[in-house]
Amino acid sequence: MSVTYPKGFRAAAVTAGFKPSGNPDLGLLVADPGTTVAGLFTTNAFAAAPVLLSRTRLTEGGGAARAVLVNSGQANAATGARGTADALAATAALASHLGLAPEEVLPCSTGVIGEPLHMESLIAALPGLVAALDEDGGEGFGRAIMTTDTVEKRATADAGPYRVGGCAKGVGMISPHLATMLVFVTTDAAIASADLHELASMHLKPRFNALTVDGCPSTNDTVLLLASGAVGEEPVHVGSAGWNELSRAVSEVGESLARQLIADGEGATHVLLVDVAGAATEQDARAVVNEIADSPLVKTAVYGEDPNPGRILQAVGSAGVAVDPGRVDVWIGDVRVVTAGVIEPSYFDGDLREAARTAMKEPEVHVRVRLGDGPGAGRALGCDLSYEYVRINGEYTT
Amino acid sequence: MSVTYPKGFRAAAVTAGFKPSGNPDLGLLVADPGTTVAGLFTTNAFAAAPVLLSRTRLTEGGGAARAVLVNSGQANAATGARGTADALAATAALASHLGLAPEEVLPCSTGVIGEPLHMESLIAALPGLVAALDEDGGEGFGRAIMTTDTVEKRATADAGPYRVGGCAKGVGMISPHLATMLVFVTTDAAIASADLHELASMHLKPRFNALTVDGCPSTNDTVLLLASGAVGEEPVHVGSAGWNELSRAVSEVGESLARQLIADGEGATHVLLVDVAGAATEQDARAVVNEIADSPLVKTAVYGEDPNPGRILQAVGSAGVAVDPGRVDVWIGDVRVVTAGVIEPSYFDGDLREAARTAMKEPEVHVRVRLGDGPGAGRALGCDLSYEYVRINGEYTT
Repeated sequence: MSVTYPKGFRAAAVTAGFKPSGNPDLGLLVADPGTTVAGLFTTNAFAAAPVLLSRTRLTEGGGAARAVLVNSGQANAATGARGTADALAATAALASHLGLAPEEVLPCSTGVIGEPLHMESLIAALPGLVAALDEDGGEGFGRAIMTTDTVEKRATADAGPYRVGGCAKGVGMISPHLATMLVFVTTDAAIASADLHELASMHLKPRFNALTVDGCPSTNDTVLLLASGAVGEEPVHVGSAGWNELSRAVSEVGESLARQLIADGEGATHVLLVDVAGAATEQDARAVVNEIADSPLVKTAVYGEDPNPGRILQAVGSAGVAVDPGRVDVWIGDVRVVTAGVIEPSYFDGDLREAARTAMKEPEVHVRVRLGDGPGAGRALGCDLSYEYVRINGEYTT
Repeated sequence: MSVTYPKGFRAAAVTAGFKPSGNPDLGLLVADPGTTVAGLFTTNAFAAAPVLLSRTRLTEGGGAARAVLVNSGQANAATGARGTADALAATAALASHLGLAPEEVLPCSTGVIGEPLHMESLIAALPGLVAALDEDGGEGFGRAIMTTDTVEKRATADAGPYRVGGCAKGVGMISPHLATMLVFVTTDAAIASADLHELASMHLKPRFNALTVDGCPSTNDTVLLLASGAVGEEPVHVGSAGWNELSRAVSEVGESLARQLIADGEGATHVLLVDVAGAATEQDARAVVNEIADSPLVKTAVYGEDPNPGRILQAVGSAGVAVDPGRVDVWIGDVRVVTAGVIEPSYFDGDLREAARTAMKEPEVHVRVRLGDGPGAGRALGCDLSYEYVRINGEYTT
């Protein structure tokens, strides 16, 4: 299923030898002629060579592209001129196997930053990769893009005659503004480039920008939305029949992938859902949700299933946003633990704390903050900070 | 020694019963008449009642104060009107025992946020506390202010005829802009309020603002610099004989306390010293040093003694500062691992990585970043992120 659930897509995966594990590490997604693509890319100043190349190709090509080549193992970031040359050479070689122009191939990489691509292995693997292309290849493609992911992430939805499918990877270096996260969403509707961008901006961007495993936006984040046009006579566009249903399906696939990503966050034992309302502006609300969701003190409290309203207030107060403490209310689950800036005194007597502790034991811990009565609201989808996070990241390249 | 090393100060400590451990938890520092005080306080919007009261008293009293009352166990933050009333009542009661005006007493609190002060225990402990005042009481005072600190932090220095002494506490919720950190520095020089402020701003503020254990500025941070005037006939002032020597001594005590604080950072096994130079502005440099020093990925790499230049570049690139990747150089210890934005390819062959790994095994890991040739420079003093940090903070209030 996954990215090949909609018509007009084929995918494949092989083991090129980038990963010491010997697991598949090179994936290819090929779309029918006429496919449009919308991309969202990392804002990190050290954006990787493949990110820069894909962004340029989408911009200069007006959103037309036919193939996505993804390697896992090396990120091809901080690799300088060599990295750019490698991305150009890899996509040119693939294009020649596929009979496409190099500009129609979008590269994505994930893995260790700085290590050059293993070009000989990559080039040698391309014929087999192309030969393996298959209409049922989506799941293999989804597995090949994984790094420290413990589970595959894929989702599908239907929208009348159209299908939407997607897969994603990413468990760490994930933060608002797309950290090492690769997301591919496909549909078989025909959608003009500008409309596809609208769809990606409205229905994918907010979901993936709300994710934060560790507050560290990666060099390689990429979200691609591809529309093959294999189904239907007419393009779907804003206001046309099918647009709303398609939007809902894209949204559903995006939400599902975002939830799957955070649930597999490095070492995560709880999802941390943070909602802030009543802020002066949406920007203020975002600053506060991120400060809470990225606070090591809040994240360790969630790990310890220890309701600690003081740490939530500490984060609210240090978000760099004008806050009137006397108007701040906080809930953990359905339990109001702070009213008008004051932690309920009964909290320290036991009953209220026990109720909050019960809410902290849920797989998804929900923290809600009301800052006042302004119009700004925001959400972050994070996770706790566990021993396992430290283990994974203390040992990653060793 | 500690805060009573300079003349004109007496201190005491008792167990009032705030801490379950039964360790001393109420400290008192009393200074001779004529003492001037300069204060630096947290910027957290949820600044605790004692912080607000101390700040107001110093401002309205023109920097004159005679006593500092510190409790550990409850932070008296997020306690609303009750918290303010408690801080007023506690300092009024102490003032009456000491024969001072309530405005001459500065309260400080550290501990669990939100829990009300245990006022009955506090009031009951005051007579014994005052009776215990002693010119050698500095070390007991320093122990009474500790929370999860594993060692006491104290320092002294001499400046000609003058002495400087200090103590500090704080191991977590420490971040630039003074997080749960209490620092008390004393001198027996006479220094007018404005000059004392200059001394605190120039020689204490930069040191404590560079500290970051977890990027979480606390509700209760306070740095107080007290000058008793017990030694010397004339006040020391900017440009007068002794000013430079006194500045150096204050600076030395501040630096020593800052180093002791970070070395005892919650769960820390390595100090992480980050220097950034060549930024366009000092503000840019500070943004980058903080992004590196607070990055969970960099901190876990330091814990794992794993040189991981990619994570350093990831942090540089996500600091929200305009960075030209092609001009960025990075050193770990003396080993240059990034040149002009590119991780040295030889790094992945082994030798360079082994050299960097050796530098990561030092108790103090030094990361240096050159962004370009701008005038902006900055430093952060942080620590690694260990299993122990997770354990301490996952279990703190339970």
